[in-house]
Amino acid sequence: METAGTGRLEAFSDGVFAIAATLLVLSFSVGTVAGSQLDTALFHLWPAYLAYATSFLTIGIIWMNHHHCVSLMGSADRTLLFVNLILLMIVAFFPFPTKLVADYLRTDGEQAAVLAYTGTLTVMAVVYNAWWRYAATGRRLIAEGVPDAEIRAVTRAFNPGIVIYGVTFLVAFASPVASVILTFLIAAFYLPSAALFNRA
Amino acid sequence: METAGTGRLEAFSDGVFAIAATLLVLSFSVGTVAGSQLDTALFHLWPAYLAYATSFLTIGIIWMNHHHCVSLMGSADRTLLFVNLILLMIVAFFPFPTKLVADYLRTDGEQAAVLAYTGTLTVMAVVYNAWWRYAATGRRLIAEGVPDAEIRAVTRAFNPGIVIYGVTFLVAFASPVASVILTFLIAAFYLPSAALFNRA
Amino acid sequence: METAGTGRLEAFSDGVFAIAATLLVLSFSVGTVAGSQLDTALFHLWPAYLAYATSFLTIGIIWMNHHHCVSLMGSADRTLLFVNLILLMIVAFFPFPTKLVADYLRTDGEQAAVLAYTGTLTVMAVVYNAWWRYAATGRRLIAEGVPDAEIRAVTRAFNPGIVIYGVTFLVAFASPVASVILTFLIAAFYLPSAALFNRA
Amino acid sequence: METAGTGRLEAFSDGVFAIAATLLVLSFSVGTVAGSQLDTALFHLWPAYLAYATSFLTIGIIWMNHHHCVSLMGSADRTLLFVNLILLMIVAFFPFPTKLVADYLRTDGEQAAVLAYTGTLTVMAVVYNAWWRYAATGRRLIAEGVPDAEIRAVTRAFNPGIVIYGVTFLVAFASPVASVILTFLIAAFYLPSAALFNRA
Repeated sequence: METAGTGRLEAFSDGVFAIAATLLVLSFSVGTVAGSQLDTALFHLWPAYLAYATSFLTIGIIWMNHHHCVSLMGSADRTLLFVNLILLMIVAFFPFPTKLVADYLRTDGEQAAVLAYTGTLTVMAVVYNAWWRYAATGRRLIAEGVPDAEIRAVTRAFNPGIVIYGVTFLVAFASPVASVILTFLIAAFYLPSAALFNRA
Repeated sequence: METAGTGRLEAFSDGVFAIAATLLVLSFSVGTVAGSQLDTALFHLWPAYLAYATSFLTIGIIWMNHHHCVSLMGSADRTLLFVNLILLMIVAFFPFPTKLVADYLRTDGEQAAVLAYTGTLTVMAVVYNAWWRYAATGRRLIAEGVPDAEIRAVTRAFNPGIVIYGVTFLVAFASPVASVILTFLIAAFYLPSAALFNRA
Repeated sequence: METAGTGRLEAFSDGVFAIAATLLVLSFSVGTVAGSQLDTALFHLWPAYLAYATSFLTIGIIWMNHHHCVSLMGSADRTLLFVNLILLMIVAFFPFPTKLVADYLRTDGEQAAVLAYTGTLTVMAVVYNAWWRYAATGRRLIAEGVPDAEIRAVTRAFNPGIVIYGVTFLVAFASPVASVILTFLIAAFYLPSAALFNRA
Repeated sequence: METAGTGRLEAFSDGVFAIAATLLVLSFSVGTVAGSQLDTALFHLWPAYLAYATSFLTIGIIWMNHHHCVSLMGSADRTLLFVNLILLMIVAFFPFPTKLVADYLRTDGEQAAVLAYTGTLTVMAVVYNAWWRYAATGRRLIAEGVPDAEIRAVTRAFNPGIVIYGVTFLVAFASPVASVILTFLIAAFYLPSAALFNRA
């Protein structure tokens, strides 16, 4: 037998999404700043607030979208489980580039930090696309009752992902801070409408 | 279709509440204090104990209250899911201002730390109120069997939240330590009776 | 209505137990030891291994026991939920005294560290006892089908807890290292037979 | 009564697997490297990327395999629960040797780090084997409907585990970096086919 239910997939994924999102808070640190300068230090943390909000919203919306995709699947096979594992490995990695952006934005290292951050997002978009296309192509793992129109709607929502994050990656060469703000705007305005409900 | 079940909402929220509460323990640190002074150092950590208990009780009670509210909803729409995500983003942020209070109470930085802490609580109260009001207004997302009286009881329990945390924020200008103690008393005595069971 | 189902209790508790147990790994650190001395440093970490195993087994067994107790309850009321929250607050605190033992055993600070550790265990035993007795007294929250003999068996298993951890606390005054070893032996040999299955 | 359902086992295990995998990200750190050298520092982190991917894939696949094994069991007894707890204790320990490999590969300490890492894997394989054999021997805890052929298939998949990780441990004496690469290859190519689906 080559396929199995999707329960294992969900159990595996839910925990990783929630923990990765919550570990993002470890990006915040004021080091050992003196008490008298704590107020200034908290304002200077704005790259950390920006990076945190961007990553939290992105992970949260991808999680809800992931739930929706899995709910359309009737079974999972070995390949899907393995690609899903690689997707989660990238999601769980997010707190690290997020911390890089928090620590290095507006310093000499901002370009390296933002390239690492948007590069991670781009790789994630590639793997996430592959994950969905593997399941959807020829309705390989799609449950029986699901109408074709719904599958096409999800696929359409996936289509711009790689391009969008590829653009944030390229923008980072010109202006790292613009790249992060663009990524935030995508998470706050574009992703919710595109991914939260994939309507036909 | 614009609405969906509340399962995704719950799965998303449970993990974040539990992890945020448990990460609060990272507020505790004795640094590299010499062994012979560890006993003194542990007593001097009292701001950390106070901040930990306050945040843990607050998150715990909000979590149980959140469960109760969701149990009254029959469906979730795009807006509710997004506001819920913002609420969780604030809850997951809590370990940072908690650590600030733990590290800076009774130092020069205590006012900045406690303003960050109570400011976070106030913003959370605003978002949490908006979340509930969006679902409850005109019974937008309320399940069919739920009596109006129960909705009104929950709304009444939400009413004082913003004012209460706004007061702790204002008190921090006069006395940061009084503000934290007040926040603790709210978590230990007021919240359980107001929020744990929202009786009609 | 004063009571509710036990689902909220379980959801709240499961996450905290699992995360607190897994965060114990943060007790391990070799600091910035030079590579050539890493092998020696890893052997000198034995207090950390001992503290980790003791805390992990203790939390794990208490978790399974907690599950068993909740399965005997038919409902939860406001008081039980609040006592449960305090119990979880203590469980989630465990990584800190565990790290103290890992860092300070066999140094000047070992007595303070082990008193903090066994003191936390003792307070947890008191709260855990109160939690169960509140539910069991007069079968206040016990489900209908559960035989009295099973309740008595659980109560019997709870009886020695406070005394046992009180003894480890007192032993720490004479010998901190003996106290930790005793706590480990309790977790490895006594707890599993006493608490894992509470037979009539 | 000596046996119980497997629900407690699953609830206990799921959380620990997910959290241990996600805490692996704490292996990454660039310390306080100057911004101008961040790009170089990120490339020099390759031992951390390698260790992270190896541990994440290994934990992920073991988790899915664990789910599959538990799904074949009809009940759990005291011994199984305790061996399972020890297995989880080792899984939750993984972030520490993973960080050692990340920090010390290609330094003087690489042999000690990789021996700690592959030693942990070997001990885990021993405990995991014991866990399964205890449940499977004489169908002690196997559910009634499960065909003998399926049990034998799982046992066959378990057979090479200890030898395989024992080899990675021995290779570490000759070449630590080869040992880690071998462990990665096992996680990426061997484990998925051997453990993800245990076909008859």
